[in-house]
Amino acid sequence: MRLAVDAMGGDNAPESIIKGCELALETYSDLKISLVGKEEEIKKFITPSDRVEIIHTDVTIDNDDSPVKAVRRKRDSSMVLAVQQVKEGKADAAISAGNTGALMAAGLLIVGRIKGIERPALSPMLPTLGGDGFLLLDVGANMDAKASHLLQYALMGDVYMKKVRKVDQPRIGLLNVGTEAGKGTELTKEVYELLENSSMNFVGNIESRDLLEGVADVVVCDGFSGNLVLKTIEGTALSLFSLLKGELTSSFKNKLAAGVLKPAFKKVKLKMDYSEYGGAGLFGLGAPVIKAHGSSDARGFFSAIKQANTMFEEQVVSTIQQELQEKNGQKES
Amino acid sequence: MRLAVDAMGGDNAPESIIKGCELALETYSDLKISLVGKEEEIKKFITPSDRVEIIHTDVTIDNDDSPVKAVRRKRDSSMVLAVQQVKEGKADAAISAGNTGALMAAGLLIVGRIKGIERPALSPMLPTLGGDGFLLLDVGANMDAKASHLLQYALMGDVYMKKVRKVDQPRIGLLNVGTEAGKGTELTKEVYELLENSSMNFVGNIESRDLLEGVADVVVCDGFSGNLVLKTIEGTALSLFSLLKGELTSSFKNKLAAGVLKPAFKKVKLKMDYSEYGGAGLFGLGAPVIKAHGSSDARGFFSAIKQANTMFEEQVVSTIQQELQEKNGQKES
Repeated sequence: MRLAVDAMGGDNAPESIIKGCELALETYSDLKISLVGKEEEIKKFITPSDRVEIIHTDVTIDNDDSPVKAVRRKRDSSMVLAVQQVKEGKADAAISAGNTGALMAAGLLIVGRIKGIERPALSPMLPTLGGDGFLLLDVGANMDAKASHLLQYALMGDVYMKKVRKVDQPRIGLLNVGTEAGKGTELTKEVYELLENSSMNFVGNIESRDLLEGVADVVVCDGFSGNLVLKTIEGTALSLFSLLKGELTSSFKNKLAAGVLKPAFKKVKLKMDYSEYGGAGLFGLGAPVIKAHGSSDARGFFSAIKQANTMFEEQVVSTIQQELQEKNGQKES
Repeated sequence: MRLAVDAMGGDNAPESIIKGCELALETYSDLKISLVGKEEEIKKFITPSDRVEIIHTDVTIDNDDSPVKAVRRKRDSSMVLAVQQVKEGKADAAISAGNTGALMAAGLLIVGRIKGIERPALSPMLPTLGGDGFLLLDVGANMDAKASHLLQYALMGDVYMKKVRKVDQPRIGLLNVGTEAGKGTELTKEVYELLENSSMNFVGNIESRDLLEGVADVVVCDGFSGNLVLKTIEGTALSLFSLLKGELTSSFKNKLAAGVLKPAFKKVKLKMDYSEYGGAGLFGLGAPVIKAHGSSDARGFFSAIKQANTMFEEQVVSTIQQELQEKNGQKES
């Protein structure tokens, strides 16, 4: 696979990005990487070779840049140039740990949607207690979603979980405020019916309380709700850890005991760390475009590359396209 | 205050309910309570007096009862009869720890809305790291909300925080997917404008990631989103505690150290336990109707009574009514 990497995106760029790439180059012998960004900085960490190309640019998109404006005005930015590589057929996939909104805009405007997909969906894997994780989509690509969008999210999630996570019959759930049919908004009621009449393994409504218990492999929702849920999980976990830290360091005795338990706490944190599952895919685009976590370390960025690699090898994009055509064919016949 | 209590609602009914009532009777010398439910069971825990009346019924509404149907068909249930007491002027407020949906339906159908309020809102106080807590509304009374509903939620939350929680200039926030204006759905964009043009202390969009940090005193949202966020906080906290428990009891050494830290863990759990703030008020009804937590213990149920008592003493309902009239007067003039 030929991969285009925005070397300047994320909190730990370019060092962690490049170290992640090195891990991937060691793992995948047929991988070639184009690193887009400031050549001098990139060269501090890696030497160009027949497998590593550097595309130089001084322009970067920052986290406070307004997404669509940034993509339109900063055409020479590392992110836009990386995505452009895919559009021009010079790369099979693109990854950035930078501004999420800008990457969504770049993906949509430059790579474009799969024919028949109405809206792309930002789709991270989230942790579950059992360790298998689940795919939540959409978490923010599309705010005012329609029922037909959510049905397509389910279809894309189904293909992804089969192909990339090797789940046989992915359990598809609908994020809702109660488990009974007929719960929720006009939107969820409509989606429930569509999913129930689909050929997918629909397991019904999923309450947000049960998400981390692993009650479904794919959970679909509108982008506003998904974004709220994603950030609530993050915020609650962070707040709890911060409360715990405060209490566990409040006395000498506590500090000693907490010291003994450090490996245990680390294990819990690791279980909640979803960067191990890869980044958030922008499903519905004509090629894999992956948003790696902004705080990715080398290992986290490597996971995102692994994800892109599997999506490419397993032809996730063309499978989604086929399934869509079959569905539409069924409708027309 | 005269209070009507559904003695049969909640996981620990009637014992915890009645013990909570006893605490309240000791605390508030002018409090009178009507306990509605199975007389024989109630009498096991309390003796009728001039301050405690028992209204007998054998019928109860269960958690799996369909809310509206249950309220319509089980007119002799402890919950419906308790709410009926308010309607008939025999009680100033009603509390139940039972089926949330049924209590919302009973409140709406029997007590009815404040004139001018378009939709009631289910409004719990949630914990913050600093301990002050914040009011989140709506968490599920009204699924497909309009902008005007959310503006009224803000107004009701503003009055509540001033009167009951004694916050001078409550900071009103709008739950959204980003802090910048112009973020979110058509609904949030519209509400943002309304709040910005109101006379309330609007502090802008609030991301769900920051909720527990205490960035606002009142956070408004549609009932679908609020319900998702509430249950995500609960689910994430429970999952984390369960992960921690697993790790901390995984070896003898860990168990010993965890034993030392038990009081610290307890403190953290207590900080996350929002039943201390009372129950969830059904704001917008013609009298205080409070949903106590289903798992309320005596202390939790007492907090809900305290909340109802303050709402009554501070005339929250009539203040909301006045503020509404003033707002509408301004509009008309």
